[in-house]
Amino acid sequence: MTTREPTREGVLQAAAKIAGLLPPTPLLPLCVGDAVVRAKAESLQPIGAFKIRGAWHRLTALSDSERARGVIGVSSGNHAQGVAWAARELGIAATIVMPRDAPAVKLERTRALGAEIVLYDRAREDRDAIAEALAEERGATLVHAYADPWVIEGQGSVGIELTAQMERWAGGGPTRIVTPCGGGGLTAGLALACPEAEIVPVEPEHWDDVCRSLETGAIQRIAPDAPPTACDALQTPATRPINFAVLKARCRSWHRVSEAEVAAAQRHALTHLRLVIEPGGAAGLAALLAGKIPPDGRTAVVLSGGNVDPAALAPLLAPGARTDLDRALALQGVPRAEQRRLA
Amino acid sequence: MTTREPTREGVLQAAAKIAGLLPPTPLLPLCVGDAVVRAKAESLQPIGAFKIRGAWHRLTALSDSERARGVIGVSSGNHAQGVAWAARELGIAATIVMPRDAPAVKLERTRALGAEIVLYDRAREDRDAIAEALAEERGATLVHAYADPWVIEGQGSVGIELTAQMERWAGGGPTRIVTPCGGGGLTAGLALACPEAEIVPVEPEHWDDVCRSLETGAIQRIAPDAPPTACDALQTPATRPINFAVLKARCRSWHRVSEAEVAAAQRHALTHLRLVIEPGGAAGLAALLAGKIPPDGRTAVVLSGGNVDPAALAPLLAPGARTDLDRALALQGVPRAEQRRLA
Repeated sequence: MTTREPTREGVLQAAAKIAGLLPPTPLLPLCVGDAVVRAKAESLQPIGAFKIRGAWHRLTALSDSERARGVIGVSSGNHAQGVAWAARELGIAATIVMPRDAPAVKLERTRALGAEIVLYDRAREDRDAIAEALAEERGATLVHAYADPWVIEGQGSVGIELTAQMERWAGGGPTRIVTPCGGGGLTAGLALACPEAEIVPVEPEHWDDVCRSLETGAIQRIAPDAPPTACDALQTPATRPINFAVLKARCRSWHRVSEAEVAAAQRHALTHLRLVIEPGGAAGLAALLAGKIPPDGRTAVVLSGGNVDPAALAPLLAPGARTDLDRALALQGVPRAEQRRLA
Repeated sequence: MTTREPTREGVLQAAAKIAGLLPPTPLLPLCVGDAVVRAKAESLQPIGAFKIRGAWHRLTALSDSERARGVIGVSSGNHAQGVAWAARELGIAATIVMPRDAPAVKLERTRALGAEIVLYDRAREDRDAIAEALAEERGATLVHAYADPWVIEGQGSVGIELTAQMERWAGGGPTRIVTPCGGGGLTAGLALACPEAEIVPVEPEHWDDVCRSLETGAIQRIAPDAPPTACDALQTPATRPINFAVLKARCRSWHRVSEAEVAAAQRHALTHLRLVIEPGGAAGLAALLAGKIPPDGRTAVVLSGGNVDPAALAPLLAPGARTDLDRALALQGVPRAEQRRLA
């Protein structure tokens, strides 16, 4: 695996390549308390997640002989679809190592994009070891979901795109970007893309390896007995040095969100943004809505993905699913001055 | 009420005004059969519907003395929010005549935008008569939801915007635009905006005044005993001469969709576009997905609104809600060549 560092120049190159490939995803205004924050809807990418960016930047950088030997990805589903989508566009064979318990919709869509899928057991097998063995056996290029300089730079293009949109529509670029954080690929990319902005990663409770790494100054792993989380996209065992070097230099605050806070954020997005956001994609929004981060008009939040099994959406909306947090949030979709009338 | 005709020049002026006010809504690719059609997500406007366009074009055309006397709107909810939003931005007093049975979310949001609301009974009262009396009493300007040249031109800006997007991303402007149709404001606007495209209005079964008017060559009204429809946004009693003149000259085909087809289209949008679309907003998509219109790569479909009560989304997703149509559609979200593997 390559060891070069990701750079802001690389992010700018990735952003230029992606601007020629895909229209910008919308940046939607959302009332949070007294502020109007901007939500970057990466859930509306063709694969339903930002991962298409890093995969495109990585695969377009392969040499002809590397392309001929194919690529190997490791992913719970969104990076899988990103690699499979880019590989199909470029005529490259893709093999993806995916957990057996990935959402059915992610497995189906990755297969539908023409990728070969190799399943593994999240609890008992080491996904990186499986992928590395496969890559060696086939001479294929391993495209890591986050510990890869091109992947980090590609994800960073989100930051370039949202900065241009905020300069046009929000009176100036972001001073704070709140983002869901798994292994730290998107978070590191945003940090490189937006040197003037505070970058705030958000993780699910118990899947907080980045938070604990930032708190201790050294990379920490997820506990083997971590309870299940709905945020399958953020279930990474640990961040890596290439990501952590950027995060450690740039992140001054970080947050954990509960499963209930994530579900309330998903419901809020359905009602007030008219968007389907997957649990992991709603983690940043959850931290904002739960009041963990003071919002203002130059705050952006990345809604990183929207791949949810329809069967998983139903219980979210079932009568009785709403909590006190939802009831409080129902009043945040409208300007503060009007809240008394609705309450 | 003014009687000037809406024009293509007016549509272009509206489009220029709106381009300075709001970012373009995204145009999303969607597999339908073997084709990739383009879905225009007007559900992502700040008020969750395209109606913000016509309201803005109309209200910005008022004189200072007209602005001072305020505006009156009539609407089941989306035009209401469009007028209320534009009025708030421009500092104009707005009163909206709304049906007592409008979705709660539409009533709440219109009120939250600062409008005064006057409720009426959809079955027993004539909404236009109430609004006209109010307008006369107050010297206010009546902003009709569809029978108004500025409103038609403003809605037509959807067509200008989607043409530019398709020229950039789909290899050429639309040859066919499929659209939900209520009174015919959006449909007439699209027809003026896109003279080269076939314009295909879609109505709910039994609420098919435009279909029957096109079939008979004269304006027809909805039967007083028409059964209920989930498509509250399309429950208009009849189109008007200013709309019908354009529709009669331009529409060569039109379609009705069932309540089940609309629900399946909403579910399909939730899963494959990651968008919440209200029933009326999904009517055009429903006709395409049900195979009533042959899709191709230059077909666009307008997803006109996304204002749904969360309580109305839950039953849509309840176990058992899926039909044979849903199961057939589940295979349309992926390229045809891959369907066998998933079936």
